[in-house]
Amino acid sequence: MRIAIDAHGGDHAPDAVMEGIGLAREKWPDLKIVLIGTREIAEKFVLSDVEFHAVTEIIEPDDKPAIAVRRKKDSSMVVGCKMVRKGEADAFISGGNTGSLMAAGFFHVGRMKGVDRPALAPVFPTLTGKGILVLDVGANPEAKPGHLHQYATMGSIYAEKVLGFESPRVGLLNIGTEAGKGTDLTKEAFSMLEEDHSLRFVGNIEARDILEGPCEVLVCDGFSGNILLKNTEGVAKAIFSRFKQELTASLFTKLAAAILKPRLKKFAQELDYKEHGGAPLLGLRGPVIKAHGSSDAKAFFNAIRQARRFLEKEVISQIEEELSR
Amino acid sequence: MRIAIDAHGGDHAPDAVMEGIGLAREKWPDLKIVLIGTREIAEKFVLSDVEFHAVTEIIEPDDKPAIAVRRKKDSSMVVGCKMVRKGEADAFISGGNTGSLMAAGFFHVGRMKGVDRPALAPVFPTLTGKGILVLDVGANPEAKPGHLHQYATMGSIYAEKVLGFESPRVGLLNIGTEAGKGTDLTKEAFSMLEEDHSLRFVGNIEARDILEGPCEVLVCDGFSGNILLKNTEGVAKAIFSRFKQELTASLFTKLAAAILKPRLKKFAQELDYKEHGGAPLLGLRGPVIKAHGSSDAKAFFNAIRQARRFLEKEVISQIEEELSR
Repeated sequence: MRIAIDAHGGDHAPDAVMEGIGLAREKWPDLKIVLIGTREIAEKFVLSDVEFHAVTEIIEPDDKPAIAVRRKKDSSMVVGCKMVRKGEADAFISGGNTGSLMAAGFFHVGRMKGVDRPALAPVFPTLTGKGILVLDVGANPEAKPGHLHQYATMGSIYAEKVLGFESPRVGLLNIGTEAGKGTDLTKEAFSMLEEDHSLRFVGNIEARDILEGPCEVLVCDGFSGNILLKNTEGVAKAIFSRFKQELTASLFTKLAAAILKPRLKKFAQELDYKEHGGAPLLGLRGPVIKAHGSSDAKAFFNAIRQARRFLEKEVISQIEEELSR
Repeated sequence: MRIAIDAHGGDHAPDAVMEGIGLAREKWPDLKIVLIGTREIAEKFVLSDVEFHAVTEIIEPDDKPAIAVRRKKDSSMVVGCKMVRKGEADAFISGGNTGSLMAAGFFHVGRMKGVDRPALAPVFPTLTGKGILVLDVGANPEAKPGHLHQYATMGSIYAEKVLGFESPRVGLLNIGTEAGKGTDLTKEAFSMLEEDHSLRFVGNIEARDILEGPCEVLVCDGFSGNILLKNTEGVAKAIFSRFKQELTASLFTKLAAAILKPRLKKFAQELDYKEHGGAPLLGLRGPVIKAHGSSDAKAFFNAIRQARRFLEKEVISQIEEELSR
């Protein structure tokens, strides 16, 4: 098993990437890692047993994705995706710009057989601690009912094989719980999901119930999913930062804060996306995993573990098989 | 000025409705109120100077809106809307089922001149304390670019006249900040908003930034707006309930909780929708205001104040004038 990793992706790269690789090498000594980065990286970091592939370009966060992945042919993202396409790597992990990684995946890895549109599928934290796989959160803003049906199939297999949910329940993000609610898209998708008995479809799910964990896989168009993802992040961040403000307002509140600190820290961690590893781009010919932009060493380690399971459980051939039925 | 109020709408009706009317009568002795409810209400509550209109039916929360507002012709919601249509009341307020109130408004009040689709427009709380008017949150799940343009005009006028925002900034909910992001809908709407110089358009707004208050009016299709509304409610509720759990976990944390209680309560209130009054259905021939389902007396009082301003500032004729330009 050979996993390619982008040395340049994420706010804490390359240090967090290196440390994450170090942790993974300790845990799985048989694992082969190919680190992709510029010469400066190779000069700065020497990791024994880690193969290095030098590139001359970097895709920057504010590059236009579609243009960047066409022009910057010797960037870490494009090279990583091409390695997967050519079989030189079994999977690719990057904490870089999401739009660019999706574009690089589409152009340079390509879709798997039977998939119309790949989907970005992060795990949302839930109060149950188990999390919920949401797809798509932005790879395909304008989805068709058939795409949502494919997301349900891909998501169910991934949730079972990689996340370990037995017989995962599938929900459809909608603006009411009754059948017949929502737009033409959700109405048609509802019928398709209901008719597919290979899925454990539990119906429409409203946005207010997600954190309670009403299902293990939630399907939606990429526009709504992206709104959901960013709104959840924004609301949680705003509430926590405001709490922090209240906790440090006076000597008394600082005392209270000292008592509560370990509990609040644990809770904040539970709501943290990094704990759940990266988000796979489901529907490509090979595993491509987007690590969160703020990933630390542990998050990169988790993304590597995720890529390993993805490969061990043969998720791609399972999805292809299911979609061909 | 004559305002009709539904005695049956909301979790705390009819008591909260009655108390809210009482507060409003104290504040504005000239205000005429028509309370609409069943005979049981009239027998139970006697409010001096409040006209009572008896009805024989109630639209229940789980009634199918489109069917209920056609069949239950003598329900408080249908009668209230018809009063507005016929000029027997200047405005109607209800805390009842949102879907049914929207349907009653469409069928029995009707659209104002120049408006294709009315929009439900609640104020979202923000960390700045000022709030942000979001429209539409579900009256029209499948919007067209022209609808979003009309929402921007209606929202700007309402935000200025009723909410008191001077020269309100208008944002477009999208999945990236750059022009050209999103779906065909958001791309076309972006161009229309940019070209209309009567608006103070500030571009695309991402869901993660809403609580920071990046604009005063945010336009979106009803599906996305509904997801946004319910997700914000759900995430905030989940975090607060979890905090509560942590605060009561031990004797020490209870001590800490006692210190923090007034601050946390104040913060929770700031994030509470009820504080901002009800959500108007903008685009109807007369003001129809949806009070939050969990409205208490103060929330009903706020909704009455809102209806008063709506009428005093002649919001409807201002919108009609602007749309006819």
